[in-house]
Amino acid sequence: MANPLLNSFLPLFYISWFDDVLTETEMKTMKDAIDSQDWLTKTDKDELFSKIDVENPPSRSQINEWKEIISKGVDDNNDDELLTDVALKLALVENPETDNEELKKLYFFLQELEKSLGIISSEAIFAFKEKHDTITSKYVTEATFEVEKLTEILDGSQAETINKVKKIFTLPAFKYEESTDTEVYREKVLKWCKILAKEGLGATAYPKEHGGEDDVEAYFSIMETLSYHDLSLVIKFGVQFGLWGMSIQSLGTEKHYKKYLKDVGSLKLPGCFAMTETNHGSNVKSLETTATYDHKTKTFTVNTPHKLARKEYIGNAARDGQMATVFAKLIIDGKDHGVNAFIVPIRDSKNTILDGITIEDCGHKMGLNGVDNGIIYFKNVVIPKENMLDRFASVNSKGEFESPISSDNRRFFTMLGTLVGGRIGIPRSALAVAKSALAIAIRYGDQRRQFGPQGGSEVPILNYRMHQRRLMPYLAKSYAIHFALQYVTKRFLHRKEAEMQEIEALAAGMKAYSTWNTRDTVQECREACGGKGYLSENRFGALKNDTEVYTTFEGDNTVLMNLVAKNRLSEFRNQFGEMNAVSLFNYVVDQAKTSITYKNPFATRNTDENHLADPEFHLHAFQFREKEILASAAKRIKKLLDSGLDSFDAFNIAQHHLINVGQAYLERVVLEQFQLQIETTNDKGSQAILGKLFQLYALSTIEKNASWYLEQGYMEGVKTKAIRKAVNQLCWEIRQNAVPLVHAFNIPESCLSAPIVTKKK
Amino acid sequence: MANPLLNSFLPLFYISWFDDVLTETEMKTMKDAIDSQDWLTKTDKDELFSKIDVENPPSRSQINEWKEIISKGVDDNNDDELLTDVALKLALVENPETDNEELKKLYFFLQELEKSLGIISSEAIFAFKEKHDTITSKYVTEATFEVEKLTEILDGSQAETINKVKKIFTLPAFKYEESTDTEVYREKVLKWCKILAKEGLGATAYPKEHGGEDDVEAYFSIMETLSYHDLSLVIKFGVQFGLWGMSIQSLGTEKHYKKYLKDVGSLKLPGCFAMTETNHGSNVKSLETTATYDHKTKTFTVNTPHKLARKEYIGNAARDGQMATVFAKLIIDGKDHGVNAFIVPIRDSKNTILDGITIEDCGHKMGLNGVDNGIIYFKNVVIPKENMLDRFASVNSKGEFESPISSDNRRFFTMLGTLVGGRIGIPRSALAVAKSALAIAIRYGDQRRQFGPQGGSEVPILNYRMHQRRLMPYLAKSYAIHFALQYVTKRFLHRKEAEMQEIEALAAGMKAYSTWNTRDTVQECREACGGKGYLSENRFGALKNDTEVYTTFEGDNTVLMNLVAKNRLSEFRNQFGEMNAVSLFNYVVDQAKTSITYKNPFATRNTDENHLADPEFHLHAFQFREKEILASAAKRIKKLLDSGLDSFDAFNIAQHHLINVGQAYLERVVLEQFQLQIETTNDKGSQAILGKLFQLYALSTIEKNASWYLEQGYMEGVKTKAIRKAVNQLCWEIRQNAVPLVHAFNIPESCLSAPIVTKKK
Repeated sequence: MANPLLNSFLPLFYISWFDDVLTETEMKTMKDAIDSQDWLTKTDKDELFSKIDVENPPSRSQINEWKEIISKGVDDNNDDELLTDVALKLALVENPETDNEELKKLYFFLQELEKSLGIISSEAIFAFKEKHDTITSKYVTEATFEVEKLTEILDGSQAETINKVKKIFTLPAFKYEESTDTEVYREKVLKWCKILAKEGLGATAYPKEHGGEDDVEAYFSIMETLSYHDLSLVIKFGVQFGLWGMSIQSLGTEKHYKKYLKDVGSLKLPGCFAMTETNHGSNVKSLETTATYDHKTKTFTVNTPHKLARKEYIGNAARDGQMATVFAKLIIDGKDHGVNAFIVPIRDSKNTILDGITIEDCGHKMGLNGVDNGIIYFKNVVIPKENMLDRFASVNSKGEFESPISSDNRRFFTMLGTLVGGRIGIPRSALAVAKSALAIAIRYGDQRRQFGPQGGSEVPILNYRMHQRRLMPYLAKSYAIHFALQYVTKRFLHRKEAEMQEIEALAAGMKAYSTWNTRDTVQECREACGGKGYLSENRFGALKNDTEVYTTFEGDNTVLMNLVAKNRLSEFRNQFGEMNAVSLFNYVVDQAKTSITYKNPFATRNTDENHLADPEFHLHAFQFREKEILASAAKRIKKLLDSGLDSFDAFNIAQHHLINVGQAYLERVVLEQFQLQIETTNDKGSQAILGKLFQLYALSTIEKNASWYLEQGYMEGVKTKAIRKAVNQLCWEIRQNAVPLVHAFNIPESCLSAPIVTKKK
Repeated sequence: MANPLLNSFLPLFYISWFDDVLTETEMKTMKDAIDSQDWLTKTDKDELFSKIDVENPPSRSQINEWKEIISKGVDDNNDDELLTDVALKLALVENPETDNEELKKLYFFLQELEKSLGIISSEAIFAFKEKHDTITSKYVTEATFEVEKLTEILDGSQAETINKVKKIFTLPAFKYEESTDTEVYREKVLKWCKILAKEGLGATAYPKEHGGEDDVEAYFSIMETLSYHDLSLVIKFGVQFGLWGMSIQSLGTEKHYKKYLKDVGSLKLPGCFAMTETNHGSNVKSLETTATYDHKTKTFTVNTPHKLARKEYIGNAARDGQMATVFAKLIIDGKDHGVNAFIVPIRDSKNTILDGITIEDCGHKMGLNGVDNGIIYFKNVVIPKENMLDRFASVNSKGEFESPISSDNRRFFTMLGTLVGGRIGIPRSALAVAKSALAIAIRYGDQRRQFGPQGGSEVPILNYRMHQRRLMPYLAKSYAIHFALQYVTKRFLHRKEAEMQEIEALAAGMKAYSTWNTRDTVQECREACGGKGYLSENRFGALKNDTEVYTTFEGDNTVLMNLVAKNRLSEFRNQFGEMNAVSLFNYVVDQAKTSITYKNPFATRNTDENHLADPEFHLHAFQFREKEILASAAKRIKKLLDSGLDSFDAFNIAQHHLINVGQAYLERVVLEQFQLQIETTNDKGSQAILGKLFQLYALSTIEKNASWYLEQGYMEGVKTKAIRKAVNQLCWEIRQNAVPLVHAFNIPESCLSAPIVTKKK
């Protein structure tokens, strides 16, 4: 510039043109402002105007010259410098004697100008800086606990079994199958199962006298650990040793154990669990396949009465199964004795399909294509009497039906109850998959850099608050569910007859809760890995598609949640007698009393940090919700029934409400078990980080249910807002430990496999 | 019974044993109650006790005998009959003269007994009935509008183009590819593209003088309609004719059009759009590939400086592409002139990869395996000067850089702006997929029956309230998004320079909104179809996996939502000058004034049906949220900046809030456009059902945001609860029209394909 003082305008002009942040109107504003300054001469003004003439923009090389001039005034090491500070230095460089008054005017004018143009001075300065650090840029992974100690807590007494399985994964045979050919994949999965059987893992749950270890707990741990590897393997393994083998063990008697269990455990006798029919998947009480008894020949004739009564989706059926546990209505002398279970051979040992059996392949599926699901039709297939699995019902020597349980319904549900183990294996397998997805996405988020402060280097995407918000709550939830599933497993292992209904509901509910969580976690993790997440090599395709059916099989989740809700309603009835107006009223009054301290203005508006972090507050909020929702559902159904509605209609109208009954119950159980775990954790480092995860699980669940708490007046807006902020803050704090937390899952790198995190670049 | 009067107890005993609804304690209760009745003799009591002795349960044949006796008292045609009515009839059958007093006692005793045992008399009766109808059972599909008329409204002016594409689908060549072999699939997709090109569809958007139709609107309709068929086809088609062709048309000049467009449109010249690099996917401004100009030879040398700067995920690259539009930093005399676009040959016409080019296959992906995505490395590849796409920047005859846009940033974003069409094609393609998923799931839900009232036949699962809740809001949302995308398309087609930033933000936002909606819709629809939904033949696998990357490509959704939010903030600034305390305060006061009528107790508690159904209420609620969230985000960021935080940190802290700014803006736009559509719909039947869908979209969106409205005091709990009920009711009402509503999408059956709905059983 002719007048060197005017160089102080260059930073402003530079960013105006270079980044085009200003509109034409704003350029005009700038011009008018300059025009109004009487301490500038006409020549000064004209020179300045020439630089901001939208009709005559500066050339590129001119802009670059400006930058070189400006750079002289910038201090790379001073992060607090403003654009106006630089401007002032520029004015001084070639003009050390300018009197102070003029400089002051200049300084204030420039400041005003920037403000009125909406330029953020502290941000704009970075256009001229070589480097730029921010809080966001500097944040890095730093473990505050010992990873191995947390792994010990997670694995608990099952460490040995878990490590045994992991060691098997190191065998070269366990390399992932990459072929998209279904036949190749099925062959590989069968081979894997054979290796596991050979290692004795298949028979783990069976009695010692039949080749097993009598260790159901270990069986679940095996299922879970296998889920770090291939899900088709898990399901094939589960069908053979769980569904097929355990149906014999749970529904049969000694003669069946002797005859079959050893061969099942060694995989010499591959078999199926043939319950589901095309027309009856959820409503299995209404299965239509028949097994008709003939006392003369002492045989049952198994038959598929029509096409839609065929057995469908049966694992092990399309390719390998030689026998099947078939669920069919038992008919004696024309009378229907409800659904019972029978062992029916379907292939001979050379794998030839037997007479009367028709098998179709279910064909390609979204996932689990290493499992040979099939369709089975029976055309008057005759089996000997001893093939009836007769623990709960039998045909006596006179050809009469006999059962210690007189009700067909009750007997059938008792039979199903013995099979509840499947509803523990599946959510545990699902959780392992959620952990794998988190391990990949969180480690990738820690490495992957994209965008950054102006003039600064790019930032790990896990430092972005939204990225944390997307992943940290799922990380917390996966820890929460881990301990809850340990609890369900223990309840199942030490079950007593009287607790069975409760345990069944608990397992059904946790199956839904965990598999839905996996669905959501894997989805979010895939998206968090962008295009890399879409490549099959990074495993989200398999994790997502293989577990997609987890929300459907072993009981459709929505149907299960209805079941849980109905169980809660009957618990309610047990506790308060019949569901009449008086007892409901008493219950509600009782509820109100216990929560009175929480419904005063101080509590509903309490946003104190310590209060929000207090596990007692969390537990009370969860319990309050659980009880209140249950009571209101009961009231509502009663009201609908009283109005003369059919109970089927009444329950249908309240269905959405009932799902929430189940949800609130499960959330309370999960919270409670997580808290118990923390209380009994000795290692301080682990305890502290588990405590943070607990808080995040608790508060993000409350946040999800915020509208309900607000409706109830249990919290006011200030509190739910404070909780939202607390969730953000917890996500930020946990991010520091996020990578160590997924390392604590201790998933073998060969299983994780995803090159985005396991390969050196 | 010895005393025939006692037969009246049989119904109660029967259901106690048959369904095992009573616990042992309750059996004891029953025994005690009987014991306390002085009008029963000792012999009577003993006989009754013998029937409810838990130590000696009745035999099965005995229970069946009871049922036969009971059936005589049941009137199959009287739905109002209670268990006690039947009991009384049984007492009378063999005992017509029993004196009234005794009968009365008996009647009241049985009533009391049932109540104290928690038996719902009107439900239990159905154990003895042959048939049983309920409201839930009777509800069926019944169209209240003409399907063809609604289709006309949806297709609008594009009906001809849409029908032309649908006709092509009927060619035998368009049968779906079932092979899991990637090579076979890619070959098929290329063949399909060639057929479409031959039919003239590829060049639709290009100028007439270069073989096209100059019809961009038709191009979008083609993309959308193709999405009913195969998604790999859509993307391959989009890469070739959209990304590759349109990059030439948008970034090049006449000489390029002449040289390339005809061959691109006929697919003689397959090409790629090579922007994304491994290290830069979202932050494309920082791409690292270089194009260095040499004035002596008048050439550019294109180079990949290091491995992670390779071009990745490039469609058409792995197999078919012969040229690519490559985005690279232009370097002249050592100076960086920002990212520009260049045409670089990568294969010759015989498909041999050229010198200096290395291509790798991206390998198997979650979906879209019919598209040959590849990785490209350039090793000093020399191209002639005319290969620079020089609409926005060029090298002049002196070898100097020239551009009408002086800022590198601005120029790059102007270039990207011309490519915004991709962000319209993708959400429209996504919506077509959501429609397909809904068509399958809703038609299946209408046919599939499972469970039912006791003694009644099974019920279509779409009659279950929860099933409606899962699907109806997505049906409403797909209609809402349809009209919003029509609006975005029109805005784009008639764009003016000054609106470009707004249109870009709108397109970016709707891309995110629509693709996330498709992700969720397809997921819910898959689950709603249970095991059948998991079979590939029913297409959810393809619909889900092919669109999985839609939330990532053409801009990661989360990044796009940030962009939308920043655009909204700058609109805010434009409207109110700088973001200072005074203008913010004024804005908020202004807001408060306009909403004063809505924040009085009457309005916040108004649960009147007409009010909840009023589009004015909906629009105000959406607008209030949009403005309030924007203002609070602006205030928050200002506060953070004022506290001395770096703007990068400040925006990071508010990131979660900013996503909501974008969300609220999009929801308002969608609502507004839906409402405009309804106002201009002449056909009364269509208008009425669209009105219902509009209400459901409006109220279910408010329900989703309920906690926010409650926090703001804009609504009270009574109102949000009433809205929840209104949503349930709307789901129930719309279910009747649900099947006709998906028929109105008019998706060809051959495309829908799913045997669960298209095949006769």
